Amino acid sequence: MGLNEFILGLNNLEKITRAPGFFKFTEHTVAAHSYRVASIAQVLGDIEENQGVSIDWKTLYEKSLNHDYTERFIGDIKTPVKYASKELRGMLQTVEEKMTDEFINQEIPEAFQEIYRRRLFEGKDESVEGEILAVADKVDLLYESFEEIIKNNPESVYKEMFVESIHTIKEYGHRPSVQYFFQEIFPELLNRDFYGREVFLESVYKIID
Amino acid sequence: MGLNEFILGLNNLEKITRAPGFFKFTEHTVAAHSYRVASIAQVLGDIEENQGVSIDWKTLYEKSLNHDYTERFIGDIKTPVKYASKELRGMLQTVEEKMTDEFINQEIPEAFQEIYRRRLFEGKDESVEGEILAVADKVDLLYESFEEIIKNNPESVYKEMFVESIHTIKEYGHRPSVQYFFQEIFPELLNRDFYGREVFLESVYKIID
Amino acid sequence: MGLNEFILGLNNLEKITRAPGFFKFTEHTVAAHSYRVASIAQVLGDIEENQGVSIDWKTLYEKSLNHDYTERFIGDIKTPVKYASKELRGMLQTVEEKMTDEFINQEIPEAFQEIYRRRLFEGKDESVEGEILAVADKVDLLYESFEEIIKNNPESVYKEMFVESIHTIKEYGHRPSVQYFFQEIFPELLNRDFYGREVFLESVYKIID
Amino acid sequence: MGLNEFILGLNNLEKITRAPGFFKFTEHTVAAHSYRVASIAQVLGDIEENQGVSIDWKTLYEKSLNHDYTERFIGDIKTPVKYASKELRGMLQTVEEKMTDEFINQEIPEAFQEIYRRRLFEGKDESVEGEILAVADKVDLLYESFEEIIKNNPESVYKEMFVESIHTIKEYGHRPSVQYFFQEIFPELLNRDFYGREVFLESVYKIID
Amino acid sequence: MGLNEFILGLNNLEKITRAPGFFKFTEHTVAAHSYRVASIAQVLGDIEENQGVSIDWKTLYEKSLNHDYTERFIGDIKTPVKYASKELRGMLQTVEEKMTDEFINQEIPEAFQEIYRRRLFEGKDESVEGEILAVADKVDLLYESFEEIIKNNPESVYKEMFVESIHTIKEYGHRPSVQYFFQEIFPELLNRDFYGREVFLESVYKIID
Amino acid sequence: MGLNEFILGLNNLEKITRAPGFFKFTEHTVAAHSYRVASIAQVLGDIEENQGVSIDWKTLYEKSLNHDYTERFIGDIKTPVKYASKELRGMLQTVEEKMTDEFINQEIPEAFQEIYRRRLFEGKDESVEGEILAVADKVDLLYESFEEIIKNNPESVYKEMFVESIHTIKEYGHRPSVQYFFQEIFPELLNRDFYGREVFLESVYKIID
Repeated sequence: MGLNEFILGLNNLEKITRAPGFFKFTEHTVAAHSYRVASIAQVLGDIEENQGVSIDWKTLYEKSLNHDYTERFIGDIKTPVKYASKELRGMLQTVEEKMTDEFINQEIPEAFQEIYRRRLFEGKDESVEGEILAVADKVDLLYESFEEIIKNNPESVYKEMFVESIHTIKEYGHRPSVQYFFQEIFPELLNRDFYGREVFLESVYKIID
Repeated sequence: MGLNEFILGLNNLEKITRAPGFFKFTEHTVAAHSYRVASIAQVLGDIEENQGVSIDWKTLYEKSLNHDYTERFIGDIKTPVKYASKELRGMLQTVEEKMTDEFINQEIPEAFQEIYRRRLFEGKDESVEGEILAVADKVDLLYESFEEIIKNNPESVYKEMFVESIHTIKEYGHRPSVQYFFQEIFPELLNRDFYGREVFLESVYKIID
Repeated sequence: MGLNEFILGLNNLEKITRAPGFFKFTEHTVAAHSYRVASIAQVLGDIEENQGVSIDWKTLYEKSLNHDYTERFIGDIKTPVKYASKELRGMLQTVEEKMTDEFINQEIPEAFQEIYRRRLFEGKDESVEGEILAVADKVDLLYESFEEIIKNNPESVYKEMFVESIHTIKEYGHRPSVQYFFQEIFPELLNRDFYGREVFLESVYKIID
Repeated sequence: MGLNEFILGLNNLEKITRAPGFFKFTEHTVAAHSYRVASIAQVLGDIEENQGVSIDWKTLYEKSLNHDYTERFIGDIKTPVKYASKELRGMLQTVEEKMTDEFINQEIPEAFQEIYRRRLFEGKDESVEGEILAVADKVDLLYESFEEIIKNNPESVYKEMFVESIHTIKEYGHRPSVQYFFQEIFPELLNRDFYGREVFLESVYKIID
Repeated sequence: MGLNEFILGLNNLEKITRAPGFFKFTEHTVAAHSYRVASIAQVLGDIEENQGVSIDWKTLYEKSLNHDYTERFIGDIKTPVKYASKELRGMLQTVEEKMTDEFINQEIPEAFQEIYRRRLFEGKDESVEGEILAVADKVDLLYESFEEIIKNNPESVYKEMFVESIHTIKEYGHRPSVQYFFQEIFPELLNRDFYGREVFLESVYKIID
Repeated sequence: MGLNEFILGLNNLEKITRAPGFFKFTEHTVAAHSYRVASIAQVLGDIEENQGVSIDWKTLYEKSLNHDYTERFIGDIKTPVKYASKELRGMLQTVEEKMTDEFINQEIPEAFQEIYRRRLFEGKDESVEGEILAVADKVDLLYESFEEIIKNNPESVYKEMFVESIHTIKEYGHRPSVQYFFQEIFPELLNRDFYGREVFLESVYKIID
């Protein structure tokens, strides 16, 4: 009933697969996703800093590394379920918070409980670091879905994920890292040949411009 | 926008793994689970009929075969989440019903909508067939978790599943098939050697008796 | 030596992969296939009933759910082997029947043996339900092989399976459900974009018309 | 329609899993099995030569490397089916030979057909090399099943495979390599700790002595 | 030729499996390992801070998150190879550094090259954060190997890894987090039942005391 | 400490995956690769013999079957690392030889040590059989990478492997089997339809001619 339980919980996150139910060429676990999001947040943080924004790196790393740890308790609830109504979303969040709280009270030694309370609660707030996390989470989804698209995955859900990612990233268009992403990184990513590329790119550019 | 979508949806159920997040020696998909539950319901139905209970076989097969089809829409929401509060459970059910309804309206031809409305809504009602489905669902969980236990799976969740299954099955102790199960089938299942068997069996028999 | 063995046997069917030896993007087990065939038979049964055909639902579900259970004993013998000669086919069937009989005598309690004798023997007879099962089995193969084709699986065996399925389904062209399938469901299935689509569709339509 | 087809066929053997239908901790393909049997035949050949037996190495390697290539055509027919009757076994062998013959006539250039006729037909004849192949095939099965046993695989089939392997190897007790195997190699293999070891070893030694 | 390549490289780390060649019940990728090590370093950092040690969190997260990124270029070279001679170890390190340097020069925009030079070079230096990384890397190996041991994995390599981890962690016995680990976390981890537990624990406690 | 260890080592080779780190549709193990290379060497040996070259078959089989056994000790060191400098390559080879030597001294009975010394050391010498092995190793890589290419694997590494294989095979253009391969076998292999075929073939033919 100490920190051992927190570490053992990492095992669970290596066993939860993202986007269950859909055919995919490459499976991603929540553990690998967390690693990827923290690494992408790091890339974005560098860009922001390079553009003169001051970054609280401890917060950025902490937020991004731990942002999905609580999926261990509540699992990967499907987006359409989560967003079915504002009320349901609120209730699910309450359940998540209750279960997280219970975990902290039972498994984390008192000396560290305060830290875990901060660490395991939703990190996507309105701070610079919260915004970068929100962007990094979607950049990862964008890479993940694009990898399926270039392999001609026939499930339409990956095109929807890709488009949805772009839309969400665009909402943070005021962030220098987002501007840099669309100018320098995204065009490089798209620069690959695959069947149906022209039609796909056309529809993508319609969204960005 | 016809029955093709219903058939394609079976693919999704072959890709949703039960009990995500836990180490397991054998993965079970929702599709395979549905096959198992229908087969077990068939076994239980035979027993009931043999004891003089009249079975509506069409209903029994239909209920058991389709009882988890809607997981395609809402996924496999974790038990502790589902049962966090009566209110939440009600709301999740409302969402599930809404999504199922939407699917039926959009994808099923009018001539068949009524049938699917019956088929895709929760089958565990208080009819004989609804009760048999409830038992079959837990008998499957019991076999599934026992297979992990005899392989010495160290995750305690499988012992919890096993015990929980027994408890639920016992609630239907008035059903002849449940009495037969505990007298004739269950002892045969337990009759295997594995490390920790004595301690395990002792705790099991405490529940049954 | 009772019904426990029948239930344990379901495990084996979750571990037998269809079409062994060929590269495939999606593996299907005999358990999942059985679930799919029962679900497809259900779709076809609805259509028949809607067209005024009287369906014995108990028989239809029973036949389709159990039609491959005996693969547990004899495995998945390759089609070219099975059909090498009428004589061999007869002998293999005799072996299958013998092994099934032995299983029933040894593992099924006397009170249920008669039922299992009916249940585990070849269901594709000339009854309406037997014909629907034969069609459903091939519709599943058609969906299975088409999923590989749209992912550009280079193994030619999937095109052969697809074509063979259509041919067999067409043999049951007198069934209302088959007519409905080719008019309403099949065109929807084909309506996806993939490399080599035109050439493929042309060859398919040559068979249907 | 030349040697390319023979090479492509190796792919199929990398995709056929041995002992389909049973739970296993480690899957073995026919390709890996062929590699193992050729390597074990090599070990046995060394021992024989060391004891003064003259070995035709070309034949030994050729027989062991190719002994299961034809599974590509006929699949892995279950032992109880194969041995159901002498007549059936004869007929299955005829089918296998016919399919192999057809493959050779259609896919192998004339200049090499004679070689493949020798190579792809049953290698377990009564020559020294044929006997070594028969032993090597069973030594591999013995290692394969023992690996499952020490991991406490609850499927009884692995103990049956293990025992059956010992019995068959013992039939070749006149071969110096078999005597060496039981004296020098087998005791080393058994020298591992696992749950149920004493009971298991006792039953094993009863067979050997 | 910008940051896109760095992000795409994360894919490779999701596809490199740790400890190749050995049977394992649970596979771990380098990506998941990196996530785990960063999370464990976080736990250790909390403990140190709680004991009055000042932690540079940016450095700790950066070191732990990126410490194996270069495995993308050089792969997972086996420990006995790496440590065969001091000279070889030096040369391998030179190669790694050269390849990393090349990657940075070719793929990272100039403005960020300095940062990546720091980030992708060996982080286990003699700073507090470098020491915590070294400990976290071994704590992860210890958890990883212990999970195999309690499942009775017969490969002796996991016991060697476990013991080696303890030895290395003990070398950092001057760190408050290591003292806390052995007093509070480790005993909780060991507190599980498995076959051979007594013998195993005895050998473990001989090392620690 | 006898031949048992050599046989157990085959397990390791069934667990080492080729080309770790890259997305692939089909995984190949070192065990399966060894089987394939021995089978391809056999094909090439036939061709050479047919053209009047005298083949020492024992040597050819022995070399090809065992050529990667030592990967068990040193793993699959990435090509760019291995070839980083002549000096490093020399040192890695020394390590490999030392580890192999140690294995032979400790695990192989004296009577067979001489044989294993010959068998486990690099087989690609300048003999006819050594050259055929070198070609067979690359023909396998060519088939392996081509299978990825026709499935539109977006990783460029497979095109590089394919091209590199052709270059190496061409270096042995004086061998009759290589001439036959490019005239009779290779064109058959290329004769499949896939997206991007024209551009790909053009670039391939530029190399061959």
